[in-house]
Amino acid sequence: MIKMLRYLPMLICLLGCTAMSAQTTTNDDDAFFIRNIYDRALTEGRCYTWLEHLTTGIGGRLAGSPQAAAAVEYTRQMLDTLGLDSVWLQPCTVPHWVRGGQEHVRIVNSSMGSIDLAALALGNSPATPPGGLTAEVIELQSIDEVAELGREAIAGKIVFFNRPMDPKQLRTFNAYGGAVDQRVFGPERSAQQGAVACLVRSMTTSTDDHPHTGVTVFPETDGIPALAISTKAADLLSGLLKKEKVNVYVEAHCQKLADQQSYNVIGEIRGSEFPDEIIVVGGHLDSWDVGQGAHDDGTGCVQSMDVLQLLKGLNYQPKRTIRCVLFMNEENGLAGGTTYAEVSNQNKEFHLAAIESDAGGFTPRGFSCDATDESFEQRFPKVIEWFPLLEAYGLSFNKGGSGADIGPLKSQGGLLFGFRPDSQRYFDYHHTDIDTFDKVNQRELELGTAAMTSLVYLIDKYGL
Amino acid sequence: MIKMLRYLPMLICLLGCTAMSAQTTTNDDDAFFIRNIYDRALTEGRCYTWLEHLTTGIGGRLAGSPQAAAAVEYTRQMLDTLGLDSVWLQPCTVPHWVRGGQEHVRIVNSSMGSIDLAALALGNSPATPPGGLTAEVIELQSIDEVAELGREAIAGKIVFFNRPMDPKQLRTFNAYGGAVDQRVFGPERSAQQGAVACLVRSMTTSTDDHPHTGVTVFPETDGIPALAISTKAADLLSGLLKKEKVNVYVEAHCQKLADQQSYNVIGEIRGSEFPDEIIVVGGHLDSWDVGQGAHDDGTGCVQSMDVLQLLKGLNYQPKRTIRCVLFMNEENGLAGGTTYAEVSNQNKEFHLAAIESDAGGFTPRGFSCDATDESFEQRFPKVIEWFPLLEAYGLSFNKGGSGADIGPLKSQGGLLFGFRPDSQRYFDYHHTDIDTFDKVNQRELELGTAAMTSLVYLIDKYGL
Repeated sequence: MIKMLRYLPMLICLLGCTAMSAQTTTNDDDAFFIRNIYDRALTEGRCYTWLEHLTTGIGGRLAGSPQAAAAVEYTRQMLDTLGLDSVWLQPCTVPHWVRGGQEHVRIVNSSMGSIDLAALALGNSPATPPGGLTAEVIELQSIDEVAELGREAIAGKIVFFNRPMDPKQLRTFNAYGGAVDQRVFGPERSAQQGAVACLVRSMTTSTDDHPHTGVTVFPETDGIPALAISTKAADLLSGLLKKEKVNVYVEAHCQKLADQQSYNVIGEIRGSEFPDEIIVVGGHLDSWDVGQGAHDDGTGCVQSMDVLQLLKGLNYQPKRTIRCVLFMNEENGLAGGTTYAEVSNQNKEFHLAAIESDAGGFTPRGFSCDATDESFEQRFPKVIEWFPLLEAYGLSFNKGGSGADIGPLKSQGGLLFGFRPDSQRYFDYHHTDIDTFDKVNQRELELGTAAMTSLVYLIDKYGL
Repeated sequence: MIKMLRYLPMLICLLGCTAMSAQTTTNDDDAFFIRNIYDRALTEGRCYTWLEHLTTGIGGRLAGSPQAAAAVEYTRQMLDTLGLDSVWLQPCTVPHWVRGGQEHVRIVNSSMGSIDLAALALGNSPATPPGGLTAEVIELQSIDEVAELGREAIAGKIVFFNRPMDPKQLRTFNAYGGAVDQRVFGPERSAQQGAVACLVRSMTTSTDDHPHTGVTVFPETDGIPALAISTKAADLLSGLLKKEKVNVYVEAHCQKLADQQSYNVIGEIRGSEFPDEIIVVGGHLDSWDVGQGAHDDGTGCVQSMDVLQLLKGLNYQPKRTIRCVLFMNEENGLAGGTTYAEVSNQNKEFHLAAIESDAGGFTPRGFSCDATDESFEQRFPKVIEWFPLLEAYGLSFNKGGSGADIGPLKSQGGLLFGFRPDSQRYFDYHHTDIDTFDKVNQRELELGTAAMTSLVYLIDKYGL
């Protein structure tokens, strides 16, 4: 689905004259300015300091939680220190799901005795009845098997989805995309056939004992208790099931509370020549409740804030309006991203470009670009011209997805960019208790800020 | 000094016909085989398991230590399980320096009271007199300042070198290269002017409290106690020195013991067509005594061993002789690398290529290539032909250094390759107590093995 443009440099060469003439639009000043951006990011960046407070000071910040409110206020205050033209909060209504206490998953009748399995309830899971529930486990490898097996096989059971992420995928996000349907849709499918609970193998290629939570959805049923178990627990359970019937006890205390008002946090530098052409950089401010939401997505937020800080520090006066948006509730419904696009459309705004950093604070490898066919054809060739300037920093471009929060802006006809850092470590931490500040390397984080700032600079200077 | 060939793809295109005809030497089978190498590395690799024992089971393994002997025996046994044509130990004589107990560096007379500074004696440092020594500290930024200031300013003092690694360097090894003269030569220069001890700011861009040891040399004096202090300690000491005279107490218990016999560990698959053309893959088996020698260089050793394991597992019968060499004593004198080249020259061997992995087990970015001018001109164009096959895996080639252990093979006229992973995190851990197994990501390590195996495969199949 994602067509990699791996041979862009070759394409440039093969296109010959076109590329040669096009390259004259950038010059030595651009190379010099981008070098300045990198120097400043690596010496005067503030992203790492901000991240420390956001993660170790505030912690996990699920939409609707007090921590999410604290994160809104903290980042608003920090943006307020940057001398921007405006900083504001954009209201949005978010769901409020709470874990409600420690969940338990326990094998109760095996030949190995009673065994606790490391587990985390999935977002939107209901609670078990008081005192928990116990039922026999049936292991499946895909959500289609639920309907194929039907009510007779599924009703009254605990469905256990155990298809692993494919370790052979070079980019771990592709492996995630190939397995995550089990977590998102598996519990609902199981509920439709009468299952009493659902367990899902954690979304990671790592073999460890950290369960990975994440969203699940129940559009058509009341839902059943749904929990992720660690990959070690999944391997153990699967091994036992090959030998014998296994009954598991499940206890979860989750609750869906009343919706809350929350906010996207926004700051902008107004453009001097084309103020109505908006360039957004952003990440999402909410995270799951466990861990500290460091790589997902504290890093994207502080990088986006730092883009504006660096441009101000370099005394850069943009032609276009450059806006940092910290979106609320990406993890559990996308209320912030949806609201932002709705308000933008009502105000007849035009986003020339939007860049989202939501793939971790690792060493930058480039950007993937999404747009309507027409916009991509019209605007992407200009991005290719910038390749030689950014390739020296290890960055490349390909056609692909951008980011969940900026996705709704696609219809405005600009280019959407997903910032793409190295992906190997991301799913070691994603949605776990170990997505913490100490997992972020300061230089990797700052290089990401520099990469994003450089792209913003080129878009601002040359348009698209 | 190192000229980056960043635009190799463009060069290929610009060379036009030459490149087009040259590319016909590789084909779809090669792409298929390399994909198989990656698949197998990510699913059947043994490097991570081996690394766990080498680091958590054996630990730091400075040349001459019992742990180094254990590492020799463990890796020999593991190579013996792979069904190679031969596995052997190559004797070499190594120095035997020991830390001899906890060192202490303490500010004793400041306005802030007594303050302990995190410190580690440098390799080859002598001990302080029993009971330690106390002297006034003088801060310098370069080793040339020692002679400029002369005996009058230096004698009786503790010289403190505090020039930081340059955070603006994109590749951290360049920043290391720009600062490490202070550690290697600073103590000797200071001793020559009568200093009583030497403190060196740790070689890292990170601001933390982990001192980084490493080698220092005293070719012309008996030496003086020489210790690295953490970057936090260095900042504190430097801050105080701006305000007042500072006396520091230094205590170190190091000893230089009698030389030991140790070994390079070697295993090979003999070539079927050109057995006299040798391709080496290697890392160094020794490490510093603190930490576990994980990224430096346990990862390089287990990757090199796994190259042979993968080729055997894929039933690949090489045309040329493929040899894994785990070199002893890279850190403190290069006895293993020197001996290996001497023996090889005596036996009139020819190394067509040698690849060293000694830059950490991080996500692979490519290889840098070193050779005599004549050999480079003759052989490197073939490597460029392979670029399209490897670029899909994020790998590129540039002209540059290779590895300390394989360097002495240069005169044989083959190509020397340094494996180049992402460098951002390396100097967080290098030569510290936190260079431990948990800092290594399994996928990143395995991708490195796959990259090295792919290059070995292409060299073996097509020659150079």
